[in-house]
Amino acid sequence: MAVSMEQLVALAKHRGFIFPGSDIYGGLANTWDYGPLGSELKNNIKRAWWRQFIQQSPLNVGLDTAILMNREVWVASGHVGNFNDPMVDCRQCKARHRADKLIEAALEAKGVDMIVDGLPFERMEELIQEYDVACPDCGSKDFTHVRQFNMMFKTHQGVTDDATNEIYLRPETAQGIFVNFKNVMRTMRKKLPFGIGQIGKSFRNEITPGNFIFRTREFEQMELEFFCAPGTDMEWFQYWRSFCHEWVLSIGLKQENLRLRDHEPAQLSHYSTATTDVEYQFPFGWGELLGVANRTNYDLKQHGEHARQDFTVEEEGKEPFIPYVIEPSIGVDRLLLAVFADAYEEQSLEGGDVRTVLHFHPSLAPYKAAVFPLSKKLSEGAESIYQQLASEFRVDYDESGSIGKRYRRHDEIGTPYCITYDFQSEEDRAVTVRDRDSMEQVRIPIAELNDWLRQKVNA
Amino acid sequence: MAVSMEQLVALAKHRGFIFPGSDIYGGLANTWDYGPLGSELKNNIKRAWWRQFIQQSPLNVGLDTAILMNREVWVASGHVGNFNDPMVDCRQCKARHRADKLIEAALEAKGVDMIVDGLPFERMEELIQEYDVACPDCGSKDFTHVRQFNMMFKTHQGVTDDATNEIYLRPETAQGIFVNFKNVMRTMRKKLPFGIGQIGKSFRNEITPGNFIFRTREFEQMELEFFCAPGTDMEWFQYWRSFCHEWVLSIGLKQENLRLRDHEPAQLSHYSTATTDVEYQFPFGWGELLGVANRTNYDLKQHGEHARQDFTVEEEGKEPFIPYVIEPSIGVDRLLLAVFADAYEEQSLEGGDVRTVLHFHPSLAPYKAAVFPLSKKLSEGAESIYQQLASEFRVDYDESGSIGKRYRRHDEIGTPYCITYDFQSEEDRAVTVRDRDSMEQVRIPIAELNDWLRQKVNA
Repeated sequence: MAVSMEQLVALAKHRGFIFPGSDIYGGLANTWDYGPLGSELKNNIKRAWWRQFIQQSPLNVGLDTAILMNREVWVASGHVGNFNDPMVDCRQCKARHRADKLIEAALEAKGVDMIVDGLPFERMEELIQEYDVACPDCGSKDFTHVRQFNMMFKTHQGVTDDATNEIYLRPETAQGIFVNFKNVMRTMRKKLPFGIGQIGKSFRNEITPGNFIFRTREFEQMELEFFCAPGTDMEWFQYWRSFCHEWVLSIGLKQENLRLRDHEPAQLSHYSTATTDVEYQFPFGWGELLGVANRTNYDLKQHGEHARQDFTVEEEGKEPFIPYVIEPSIGVDRLLLAVFADAYEEQSLEGGDVRTVLHFHPSLAPYKAAVFPLSKKLSEGAESIYQQLASEFRVDYDESGSIGKRYRRHDEIGTPYCITYDFQSEEDRAVTVRDRDSMEQVRIPIAELNDWLRQKVNA
Repeated sequence: MAVSMEQLVALAKHRGFIFPGSDIYGGLANTWDYGPLGSELKNNIKRAWWRQFIQQSPLNVGLDTAILMNREVWVASGHVGNFNDPMVDCRQCKARHRADKLIEAALEAKGVDMIVDGLPFERMEELIQEYDVACPDCGSKDFTHVRQFNMMFKTHQGVTDDATNEIYLRPETAQGIFVNFKNVMRTMRKKLPFGIGQIGKSFRNEITPGNFIFRTREFEQMELEFFCAPGTDMEWFQYWRSFCHEWVLSIGLKQENLRLRDHEPAQLSHYSTATTDVEYQFPFGWGELLGVANRTNYDLKQHGEHARQDFTVEEEGKEPFIPYVIEPSIGVDRLLLAVFADAYEEQSLEGGDVRTVLHFHPSLAPYKAAVFPLSKKLSEGAESIYQQLASEFRVDYDESGSIGKRYRRHDEIGTPYCITYDFQSEEDRAVTVRDRDSMEQVRIPIAELNDWLRQKVNA
């Protein structure tokens, strides 16, 4: 039986993965805090991405740019002019809705499958009339006109509040990469093709955030901008499309919960010639997990014109050109949600017992192992094993309750290996290691434990 | 000869450590972007902290809370009311100054050493008169009154701009920990004493940021809040004070560039009974690197009252109490600046040559090793070594110029080991490893390279 969102949210809160933000003050709409286990899981996902996309790629390098950027960046990128959602207010109850989503939901309820996103505002207003759309909050059908709403968070930097100091929280990490294209190329002595990746927070003032951590106003991105010569761009697009698909499989997501959706020409952003979404089957339905886009030379061209920079590159036997960009862009939070949902199982055991188990890939699991003394008399030896492992891995120490209870407790948070130090360990300098998934046990010499675990968790 | 700020800034920009933010648009006052090498260095500093303060401590756990929090958090913490700097305007040129810093600088120029921070505003105005303080921008002595300036960045969440939606960017990560105290204690089955740590961005609208990445409006913190019973608090304060001092030594900072400064009673925040700053001798003078504070039960008490939560804890044989908090708080960016300055050396070599070398601790170095083919004919073998190492470490591959030039290039970015694959390597399956600091060379079998390097960089 598939896991429900309610089960995930409950487990996340109950076991220290994710708490509502500002919880004791009744929260702050749709913000979330990662707890002790959630923060480890999130760090592990980010490290896995960095390892695969930056560390192990001889072509790519990393970057870490500021959230606060010069306002002109967002003028050039088009965000000041175009980063808008269509918005409509209910005149009765004053509730504000994202117009396209409101209409799509109403149409779906009537059995009509239509993508409203991107239609002209007048057409949206016609659809509201035609399909008799009502406010989901109060039932009224009296709406304002559809208007634009810019999704960037505004703030003021400096000590005066006037308009000249107005800046934005970045709505994507990508632009921090584009504005540093020449800095990186020069200082790292790079030639095309090469990529620049970064991980960081972005902010979008979504009209209707929701589905737990799937769509939040504050979120984290892992973006790679891969620069190449025009003419080679579709080849690299295919390369990164496959690379991303294989990567999410390699960190444990199940093939049957993934699908690739190539955008139709009409759905493409104006600057993109090809885009593929990798979608995941969340408990609430299919949702975008990551996107790979051919952004052409749009961004560098825009910045080149606005900042009066020359972004052309020369290659032997070619006219000077502005590089094309392939962008694999992944949301950390929604990938974490997919990893969490995918790992969840309520498993019936022999004898009628049921255990809840999170089958995390060992490289992502919050704790790589848990160390148990069989008896409190053995705590000295067990603690020394804990210290030996903690120098290299995030591990837990647990001495409360029966061994069976401790297994269940760690199954539920996805700890792949439980290590019991027993009376025999004092003699043979070995411990019993129990596998989370197979529940099989093996005996491993203490001296070999770090090597053994390193091989398992990095595999 | 000591390194100057100009040398550091130039090397940082030239070799891909740190670029001015929004560089191609003329920057955005005092924002900085970490380049390919700077982002690796920063990640390594953050990982070293997490390993030492979270992973290896059986008492502590991690957390990762949202930047955007409910406004009431900052009312309770006192930031809405008290997080102010004294500000004064020049009537002539309209320049805005932080009053205490303006006066301190003017006094220092007259040979008077006085801490103005914390004095009443009227006293500051008197000092401006008494010492004939002039505007550093235009020389005028015509100033406005000293006024309060709240340093929190404001923004609006949600789709209406009214005051009810006004929120702040967090000015410290600590409050995200306090509001989750009970969530963490419950879900992690913790008993006192225990700590909760997190790493993340904070924002302060400083009137006068400066000194490169030392004081910026957007910055990153590593904070631990350690909860304990009153009566044990000063013992734990001493414990974390020593722990922090030893930690910055263990990652390579030189003892002679560090000093501990215990705050005098008059300097303490109203909620603190003891605070020690660990200061570092930056090229511009001594500056705060990190602080350890006994925050008493102030924060939990404030949140308890404002959010109507019961934060009392019961321990056998004691009256129920609200836990005390010891806070070691470290700025990532300024620690990175200290690491950078401390590592810098222009070294005279035999024969009259000079090399610039960054003596980073191997665990912090951006690249752990660089792999060189002696000749381009050997690139296949060298690349296979690169891949073997890259699966586990961040390493570079460099085949351009003489080996001597490649050594110099990697000395300048602090790569601790340069590995040359030569013609003999094809026969004996071993490589020459050259040590950055001693410049000595050893021959290591390729099969043992990962184990050898792992031991070096984690030591």
